[in-house]
Amino acid sequence: MNIYVFGLGHIGLPMAIWMALKGYNVTGIDIHRDQIETIREGTVAIQEHHEGKHIASIARDLLKTNKLRLQDTFHRMNDEPSIFVITVGIADRPDGTQDVSTVHKVVDTILPSLVDGDLLIFKTTMIPGTIDTIVIPKVQSLHKKIYVAYSPETISETAAFYELEHNERILSAMDEDSYVTAEKFLKSLTDSPIHRASTIKLAEMVKVVQNIDRDVNIAFINEVSEVALKLGIDIHELRQLVNTHPRVQLLEPGPGVGGYCLPNALKYLQLALDEEMRGEMQLMNTARELNNLRPIKIVHQVIKRLSEHGKGIKDAKIAVIGLAMKDYCADYRYSPALEIVQHLIREGAEVRAYDPLVPAYVIHQANSYEEAINRADCIIIAAKQENVGFDPVEISERMDKPAIVVDTRNALAPHPNIYLYKV
Amino acid sequence: MNIYVFGLGHIGLPMAIWMALKGYNVTGIDIHRDQIETIREGTVAIQEHHEGKHIASIARDLLKTNKLRLQDTFHRMNDEPSIFVITVGIADRPDGTQDVSTVHKVVDTILPSLVDGDLLIFKTTMIPGTIDTIVIPKVQSLHKKIYVAYSPETISETAAFYELEHNERILSAMDEDSYVTAEKFLKSLTDSPIHRASTIKLAEMVKVVQNIDRDVNIAFINEVSEVALKLGIDIHELRQLVNTHPRVQLLEPGPGVGGYCLPNALKYLQLALDEEMRGEMQLMNTARELNNLRPIKIVHQVIKRLSEHGKGIKDAKIAVIGLAMKDYCADYRYSPALEIVQHLIREGAEVRAYDPLVPAYVIHQANSYEEAINRADCIIIAAKQENVGFDPVEISERMDKPAIVVDTRNALAPHPNIYLYKV
Repeated sequence: MNIYVFGLGHIGLPMAIWMALKGYNVTGIDIHRDQIETIREGTVAIQEHHEGKHIASIARDLLKTNKLRLQDTFHRMNDEPSIFVITVGIADRPDGTQDVSTVHKVVDTILPSLVDGDLLIFKTTMIPGTIDTIVIPKVQSLHKKIYVAYSPETISETAAFYELEHNERILSAMDEDSYVTAEKFLKSLTDSPIHRASTIKLAEMVKVVQNIDRDVNIAFINEVSEVALKLGIDIHELRQLVNTHPRVQLLEPGPGVGGYCLPNALKYLQLALDEEMRGEMQLMNTARELNNLRPIKIVHQVIKRLSEHGKGIKDAKIAVIGLAMKDYCADYRYSPALEIVQHLIREGAEVRAYDPLVPAYVIHQANSYEEAINRADCIIIAAKQENVGFDPVEISERMDKPAIVVDTRNALAPHPNIYLYKV
Repeated sequence: MNIYVFGLGHIGLPMAIWMALKGYNVTGIDIHRDQIETIREGTVAIQEHHEGKHIASIARDLLKTNKLRLQDTFHRMNDEPSIFVITVGIADRPDGTQDVSTVHKVVDTILPSLVDGDLLIFKTTMIPGTIDTIVIPKVQSLHKKIYVAYSPETISETAAFYELEHNERILSAMDEDSYVTAEKFLKSLTDSPIHRASTIKLAEMVKVVQNIDRDVNIAFINEVSEVALKLGIDIHELRQLVNTHPRVQLLEPGPGVGGYCLPNALKYLQLALDEEMRGEMQLMNTARELNNLRPIKIVHQVIKRLSEHGKGIKDAKIAVIGLAMKDYCADYRYSPALEIVQHLIREGAEVRAYDPLVPAYVIHQANSYEEAINRADCIIIAAKQENVGFDPVEISERMDKPAIVVDTRNALAPHPNIYLYKV
């Protein structure tokens, strides 16, 4: 059976490959030609591994055997009933508002080619109500036997293949036939449990709440981290011990919340609600604001520590190591590290940024880790990456004294010549 | 070996009994004579069970064999090295401020009798720094070989015996000898893991953060519940599906946060911090405020639903069923249900409260569940209790029409004649 996967980003590409590895003939469609090009070339900037192989190399092998095909403009292969997996999500405009035209567009692209027996299965986070109000009316207007389902994806970037195989799945559908058809397809991929949501809107809400839960709990651990630093308590020892409680699972502290999913989740929920209710969501709103403020708080921490050692931020040499939105990842969308760099520049610091996986066109970078940390007054560790060492001896030798390190990732071991602040 | 357990409340009594069942000779001390009396009489108002037997009956059996002794004034049995387990916690004054004089008192009570080789082990939630600043100087002033340790208790009321046996334990001590001695004692009780905290202050912080984590996450799920109701989504179906995510574990929504532990935890943390830092804990402060407001929000929900059905709150007959601070529990300290009753009375409603485990002197109650719900305009379900049925047919027959039920415990099944609001 043919599968068409729409969107070949951090979710879509691993999914397309995974389905091809399961034996399906997969066509991946992405309107971004450069993304298609990097997949063909084997240089795609997505950090996923499966059975020891990098995703770029798996993709090339599948392309050679035609189990995976790529298109930048959608063409249907044949008229046999097929499966359309849609990982194209709601876009956000530069002003931070949401743009559902991407959903309209992808459905309008598929619609003219649909035949009886086709299944459309949507995977991305949606404003609760999107499938019911945008997708279903368009599909029903065809008066064909089309199946529509929603099964939100919960995989974590950098662990995509493992989690595609093992995560439990939520499924909801337009009608009973759609449910049965979609369930059969999901079961053919892996036998991890499938949980039925009674309505598509509920399933959309499930995914949004999962993301907001993590947003709130990251804000919480970061607040605990600030308190712990004040009390002279190691946040990581604290966290590890707190998590021995049977009903508590603190997340990791960090430099802020990046990536596409978590920062946008609250907006999706707000768009499903009226004005009055939006204002009443005090805890979620507070958590979001705090997460937005976290990068600048990290910068204030740096200014404070420099000042304690008689240094000003202006013209201080600050190395920001790790620019991706999370460890071992190439995704830099909404990365808090990039915000930290911007705030530092605004404060007059001389910033040397470095991340081997984030391209140079995104942000001016030092040529190497060593160049970034050489003679630095302060290092901010914002993300871990393979082969970026954080060796305390090397750091203490290369940095100007006193050597100040603000470590948001628990990456650096203590050293007598380093003032190490874990936040 | 003799064990003296100070405080025979919801934590101390199960612990004293558990230690006696493990073979120790246990003396339980509580300055509240009425508590001692109810334990002797077998009428103690604590809902715990072990191997099918109620705690009151286990206590009486142990009293008969002298494995458990009770004292309202502390007398040491002999001069052999003994273990002093202190479950007396920080008290709160009527104005909501904290009173550490209870900690001073219990230590001062024990101090004159201490001999070389005694172990003092503290179990309650403390303001981080309490043991270091209050307890240790007193003990050290004796110039004897006394061991001091802190191991915060994490057991959940109503599941005490199971959790005493199975929960992992945090342990920290004044010095290495104290640690070894306390660890040996804890290991003699059960083989669940023991995790060492590097300082006592850190261990105190662990317990406070565990409680605040739950406070924050209860505020979150209650906020999600309000949103879900607005969107016409069943909060319990939503929660169950959200919790299939590998990194998400939503707690249960409810009428508010009661009991002694969770509402006080944030105050303990604030007392360990300076004024400036207290104000900065925006997420924790917001969560606490929201949890404080939850009972009145439930009342506003009732007023709204009555109004939708053409009824006013004034003189409306409202049954509040379940008055304990949580399900199947006799503990009513800071119970949100009691606050709900007070708000309803203030609004002019005619309230019929009922809980078989909460004594009549706490609050005026109907004589039975049936009497409470008869001809009621609205029922608020605030806690579940054994033998309190929530049978939808009975409820719909006994209530005035339209029958409105605001269910904070997911206790009532839907019925065509009941307007059921799950919050």
